[in-house]
Amino acid sequence: MFEFELTHTDGAARTGVFKTPHGDLTTPVFAPVGTAATVKALTPVQLRELGATLVLSNTYHLYLRPGDGLLRELGGLHQFMRWDGPMLTDSGGFQVFSLSDTRKIDADGVTFKSHIDGSLHRFTPEKSIAIQENLGADVIMTFDECPPPLDRAYNEIALARTHAWAARCLAAKTRADQALFGIVQGGIFPDLRVQSARYLVGLDLPGYAIGGLAVGETKAQMHAMLEVVQAELPANKPRYLMGVGSPEDLVNGVARGVDIFDCVLPTRLARNHAAMTRTGRLNMKNAPFARDPGPVEPGCTCYCCANFSRAYVRHLVVADEILAAVLLSMHNVHVLLTIMREMRAAIAAGTFAAYAERFLQAYGGGKVEGDSRD
Amino acid sequence: MFEFELTHTDGAARTGVFKTPHGDLTTPVFAPVGTAATVKALTPVQLRELGATLVLSNTYHLYLRPGDGLLRELGGLHQFMRWDGPMLTDSGGFQVFSLSDTRKIDADGVTFKSHIDGSLHRFTPEKSIAIQENLGADVIMTFDECPPPLDRAYNEIALARTHAWAARCLAAKTRADQALFGIVQGGIFPDLRVQSARYLVGLDLPGYAIGGLAVGETKAQMHAMLEVVQAELPANKPRYLMGVGSPEDLVNGVARGVDIFDCVLPTRLARNHAAMTRTGRLNMKNAPFARDPGPVEPGCTCYCCANFSRAYVRHLVVADEILAAVLLSMHNVHVLLTIMREMRAAIAAGTFAAYAERFLQAYGGGKVEGDSRD
Repeated sequence: MFEFELTHTDGAARTGVFKTPHGDLTTPVFAPVGTAATVKALTPVQLRELGATLVLSNTYHLYLRPGDGLLRELGGLHQFMRWDGPMLTDSGGFQVFSLSDTRKIDADGVTFKSHIDGSLHRFTPEKSIAIQENLGADVIMTFDECPPPLDRAYNEIALARTHAWAARCLAAKTRADQALFGIVQGGIFPDLRVQSARYLVGLDLPGYAIGGLAVGETKAQMHAMLEVVQAELPANKPRYLMGVGSPEDLVNGVARGVDIFDCVLPTRLARNHAAMTRTGRLNMKNAPFARDPGPVEPGCTCYCCANFSRAYVRHLVVADEILAAVLLSMHNVHVLLTIMREMRAAIAAGTFAAYAERFLQAYGGGKVEGDSRD
Repeated sequence: MFEFELTHTDGAARTGVFKTPHGDLTTPVFAPVGTAATVKALTPVQLRELGATLVLSNTYHLYLRPGDGLLRELGGLHQFMRWDGPMLTDSGGFQVFSLSDTRKIDADGVTFKSHIDGSLHRFTPEKSIAIQENLGADVIMTFDECPPPLDRAYNEIALARTHAWAARCLAAKTRADQALFGIVQGGIFPDLRVQSARYLVGLDLPGYAIGGLAVGETKAQMHAMLEVVQAELPANKPRYLMGVGSPEDLVNGVARGVDIFDCVLPTRLARNHAAMTRTGRLNMKNAPFARDPGPVEPGCTCYCCANFSRAYVRHLVVADEILAAVLLSMHNVHVLLTIMREMRAAIAAGTFAAYAERFLQAYGGGKVEGDSRD
């Protein structure tokens, strides 16, 4: 269980198989996010048909509603939302630290107010693990602090807490059917990143995440940190870049040895009437689409593009129809999962560098009406 | 084309096959409503899987947005929303007359303001037919006036207009691949209903609708009018009871010879977190469902009930998740289509009266937590 077998490498990029209690994951893999025990607007059957294999859910949200105790009572998160494939939960840390006005950090944990009803709650490393054990995902995460990436002093203090908390999470963990991944922090500071990676590798965890990226730093800074961390992490453990999900970031992440990604982007953009394409984003509300009989993305084989016109999708968006969110969520998730499939094939064929270059050129160089870049 | 063959009769109830350019409809049939060219929250594939065979769309809404000219340009309503089965459009009359503050009726037609932007528009019988020809549904409707059912004087005036407009609609119609149904009006007044049915039968239309019911009269008054009209309509033409879709009304309608129904009820209730069941409605937001591991309706075979708990559906409702509307729409449409299937089987077996009695007893006599009746 939780063995990770590398199947191909091509430069820093690699393919592998990660064994979980709910099946083998072929990596690199992108996980759609089911924040509140549902990938918004999609049924589990639709997710399967799209080729999704891994789903992430959020500890903070599920702890508050419907409650992790209730989820345990009802057989756990898999049973509750009827996703029978591998699942991952975050630690709740990122969400709690995002509540910047209403949370108080101390060495032992974080006290915060619910965004739903203002009630007072407290997370500690032990509490985060207890909640995640109640939820029952295959991969669970250490409780970490995600500070502003450019603030060196803060990152030093936060890193000490993150490391102490990682050890406490490991000590608190009781279930053998869950893999605890550690989270490398350290902002944009190479020495802190190295220190963090080494500390966590010393805990001999079954996988390592890279946190605190895609939160305000530049793309160049993100790439530099991925390279620094990648060199420190053992090759035979999966690497998870948290919260990343634009097409270019997926390609750049895989190019730097990342195996797992998650992001709300495809489903959130869909609810804000944006279509992801290989040449950039389309705002489906744009007037020129009103009479456009072509698909959202020419050549795309998803249910939306195989059946419906841009004119229809725009009409649904303008009329504020639920089906707009459904069809665009399907399309956007399909786009990201297709890119992941293509990257796995390119790595296996030893042609990843050429694939990545071609992809990024088309993505950056494309010019589409109504485009707005990541 | 548009032949209607009766296959079984059982008392006043009957089964039949209605031939349309987009396939044969087995009756009695319930049509989910796709107001704005989408049955809200459901994909065409999901509708098919639920067993839907006929979909209704609204002329008023599509005329305003995206526009019937655009729909014709894009290949018509079937192509636009990718429903390849039989479709029906109403005449726009009901919606326009519902805009009671902003419309003005004269002998020639109705002037009204758009509910979207307040712009001024005018429908005449000829305009309604022109729009419906642009939309291209298999069954189109005469432009009628639907007055308050209890106002005798108003019903007499409106009926004269409705009849004159029906003749003008028939004269204006140009497409041979569309069947124009006439709409019997007359409020709760048997003599007006008889007069209306006889006038329209005199036009020798391929089908007849019963309008102006389920709009404020009692159930007993509705049933009486159905019986009066049924006796006047030719047996070899389909009969369509407009805007009706509660389980009990479907059973009572079929018992009085109705072949076709449509209603927004299953999908509208779903978006208002109500589940239709054989024993009444459930408000899925109710607190007792929070820990309920059972399905929304025990014994139901729909995707929602086969997979998810009441606890999960309640959670989706409370968290305001799109999937709540999707799953409850699937369940509610499934319930109505299942009742229609059961009625067709009972009529074929000659056991309809017993079926109807049993159904109505369970429906009226059932006691379910959180219940609220139609």
